[in-house]
Amino acid sequence: MARRTGRRPGKQDTREVILAAAREAFADRGYDGASIRAIATSAGVDPALVHHYFGTKEQLFLATVQPPVDPAELIPKLVAGGVDGLGRRLLETFLSVWEHPVTGPAFEALLRRAFANRVSARLVREFFAVQVIRRAMQSLGGAIDPAEVPLRATLAASQLFGLAVTRYVLRFEPLASAPRETVVAAVAPNLQRYFTGELS
Amino acid sequence: MARRTGRRPGKQDTREVILAAAREAFADRGYDGASIRAIATSAGVDPALVHHYFGTKEQLFLATVQPPVDPAELIPKLVAGGVDGLGRRLLETFLSVWEHPVTGPAFEALLRRAFANRVSARLVREFFAVQVIRRAMQSLGGAIDPAEVPLRATLAASQLFGLAVTRYVLRFEPLASAPRETVVAAVAPNLQRYFTGELS
Repeated sequence: MARRTGRRPGKQDTREVILAAAREAFADRGYDGASIRAIATSAGVDPALVHHYFGTKEQLFLATVQPPVDPAELIPKLVAGGVDGLGRRLLETFLSVWEHPVTGPAFEALLRRAFANRVSARLVREFFAVQVIRRAMQSLGGAIDPAEVPLRATLAASQLFGLAVTRYVLRFEPLASAPRETVVAAVAPNLQRYFTGELS
Repeated sequence: MARRTGRRPGKQDTREVILAAAREAFADRGYDGASIRAIATSAGVDPALVHHYFGTKEQLFLATVQPPVDPAELIPKLVAGGVDGLGRRLLETFLSVWEHPVTGPAFEALLRRAFANRVSARLVREFFAVQVIRRAMQSLGGAIDPAEVPLRATLAASQLFGLAVTRYVLRFEPLASAPRETVVAAVAPNLQRYFTGELS
């Protein structure tokens, strides 16, 4: 059999080159700062090809993170019912995802990659703080001062990440074995304060 | 030069054997459940030798964790002023330690080891939740219901670990660059609620 040498880049390679450029761009400049045009330039392809393979900027971003859940499905559930119950709904969703046999281990793997690697850390941050929490806050139509949304979103992330780390990864007892309702009752008001309480 | 073969175990080896046994015991049974007697038995030495090398059980525990700060120095400062300001004092101490050029990186290394390794995870948990937070709460002389101390201590740990992970390790902005006073104003009331607030 003849060995192929110097073969031309195929579809799969082009996809991978675009994904690698997107990963770098989202990690360096954040979701908001990265553009399809700049990603296409850095990958050496036409922007139309990026759209052809990945769809929208949001879909391209999700392809770089590969989160176990789709924010487009989550956000409407988090937002339904208004700003008052946002802390509780976000917390209940977060605990369900972590305690689910498929999405739980996937999230733990994502968190471990973020710990091990600077680029993964930034992608996880953009996914979680921007795509999930910030978007949910913004979908509430001005109920939260837009200027305060970024800090409030990362404060909420600090509580949720801390809960994931202590309850599921490091397994601090008695928190690790506490029933979900106990955790929700204890933590939801703190999360809600980060969304709507006085912070200074 | 003659090579020494089959040399008898020296002081250094005995210390290491005791430390390894202590690490396993504290990780498996927790600080409260591990005993000097059992550690000595598992190391194959007399309990008096454990005391001779390491002092008290608490000192032996600290030798296994090697934390960058000594709880015996921290606790009196955390407790001074009573239960009302505990959240703020613990938070200010925690941020100072993380932002200190020597103890900060040491804590990050400890946290990374905990992520990588089951035994380290349990030692960090015992150090942080039991030796620091729980002891500070218990030093307040019944101001907090003793039956609730363990859960409250791990809830406080969830917020502090989450802050460490998002502000210092994964560097979520704008939280990572927020002035210390902003973080204290935002987070201290949430921490205080875990110590003295209604949780259900």
